[in-house]
Amino acid sequence: MNIALIGAGNVAWHLAQAFTKAGHKVVTVYSRTATQRDELLQLLPNARATEKTDFTNLAVDVVVLAVPDAAIAGVAAQLQVKPGTVVVHTSGSQPLALLQSITGAKIGVFYPLQTFSKQKALDLKLVPFLVEAEDEATLDQLTQLAQSISNQVQQVNSEARKQLHLAAVFACNFTNHLLGISHQLLQNAGLPHTLLQPLIQETIAKAALYPPFEVQTGPASRHDATTIQAHLQMLEQQPVFQELYLKLTQSIQAQSLAK
Amino acid sequence: MNIALIGAGNVAWHLAQAFTKAGHKVVTVYSRTATQRDELLQLLPNARATEKTDFTNLAVDVVVLAVPDAAIAGVAAQLQVKPGTVVVHTSGSQPLALLQSITGAKIGVFYPLQTFSKQKALDLKLVPFLVEAEDEATLDQLTQLAQSISNQVQQVNSEARKQLHLAAVFACNFTNHLLGISHQLLQNAGLPHTLLQPLIQETIAKAALYPPFEVQTGPASRHDATTIQAHLQMLEQQPVFQELYLKLTQSIQAQSLAK
Repeated sequence: MNIALIGAGNVAWHLAQAFTKAGHKVVTVYSRTATQRDELLQLLPNARATEKTDFTNLAVDVVVLAVPDAAIAGVAAQLQVKPGTVVVHTSGSQPLALLQSITGAKIGVFYPLQTFSKQKALDLKLVPFLVEAEDEATLDQLTQLAQSISNQVQQVNSEARKQLHLAAVFACNFTNHLLGISHQLLQNAGLPHTLLQPLIQETIAKAALYPPFEVQTGPASRHDATTIQAHLQMLEQQPVFQELYLKLTQSIQAQSLAK
Repeated sequence: MNIALIGAGNVAWHLAQAFTKAGHKVVTVYSRTATQRDELLQLLPNARATEKTDFTNLAVDVVVLAVPDAAIAGVAAQLQVKPGTVVVHTSGSQPLALLQSITGAKIGVFYPLQTFSKQKALDLKLVPFLVEAEDEATLDQLTQLAQSISNQVQQVNSEARKQLHLAAVFACNFTNHLLGISHQLLQNAGLPHTLLQPLIQETIAKAALYPPFEVQTGPASRHDATTIQAHLQMLEQQPVFQELYLKLTQSIQAQSLAK
């Protein structure tokens, strides 16, 4: 397929290379950040920069908006395409309907469920892609495009995708924050942060094998009030972390009551 | 070394096998749960059960208390050993001093920093062992014993071990709870829980490579009030999780202000 990319950030960076590798052709890249765009174009010998969002004169099958969530509506308002062109965004949290203003486009969502950074190579084959479209033909087309770069393609509507995004915030963003707190506590104690790695790995491995609520361990789940009090006291100087410790403990205990 | 085990739970189960494999001799096992003890003894052809905690007539170099935290003081109060016998507990959160009541013993801590279950095989070589003792000779002895079964041995005092345990509660117990919430949200949306696995793996991998606070992503860190409000509303029916979402968001934002 002939693909136009809008955006030259982390997602565009990984998608462009995967599309090219799969035999598709990235024909043009639009980005408000010219330096990022030109960096990306160095990896794409057949692609050209464009300064306009009028794509009506280009032979493009799919336009991929790989821009921040907050920028999608603005880009959609400016974008002009040939009737029948597929236009997708790549956001986990934004509805398909955000693209409805684009005249003549067949709209869809093409969401790679992964966290991207340019520095870190990723095997997109293992990344789940969630696709959505208004009509069956477009959905098929997007499913094929996704399957050409990934082995994990799912058709998921906007409502379920919203739930999934919320779940991802808990499992990834919030988990990263807890790992950050742990990292800081180790640092304060003069201990190497690598010390907890095997335990973290095992925790994640276990939570993939069993429902996590059923394998919950620790002072909260065994209602060990002495240890909990001692920990709260150790966090006296970090009231935000102390409050978080308390709420997480309460949530674990509420969960064990619910069982 | 000749080793006596007190306890026949998950930790004892893994330690006994590792000691035997490393050429040590587990000579006796004491446990209040006879069925667990006898199960463990089936793996240890040279060990015998004992019903008493008077070990003064046994040729034992090290007595390992692999019992729940709350049981350590009780066992220590009953235990009798030959003068000079090394006695250790295996707890991450309990101080060395808990063993001070044991007459004539050289006391120490022998803490495997991992979560154990009998069903799941573990390579102890990769598990960090934290050792502590009151005197240098005992510390050397425990370090050697630990090094015979693990490649990751650290000498850590009770104060640092307490900090480490608190860090582990955040990185593992609390993380598991967040994974449980995520698991439940996916289930509610009719989505397979495997969908988030690659993202979780990548989150953990990134947090091992970079300080987690520096690679924090998500609606909280980008101060995306619209998404945060939408998520809070989606959690309306689960007030405990809603509160947790709010506190975690606030903690992430407080952290980014602190930078």
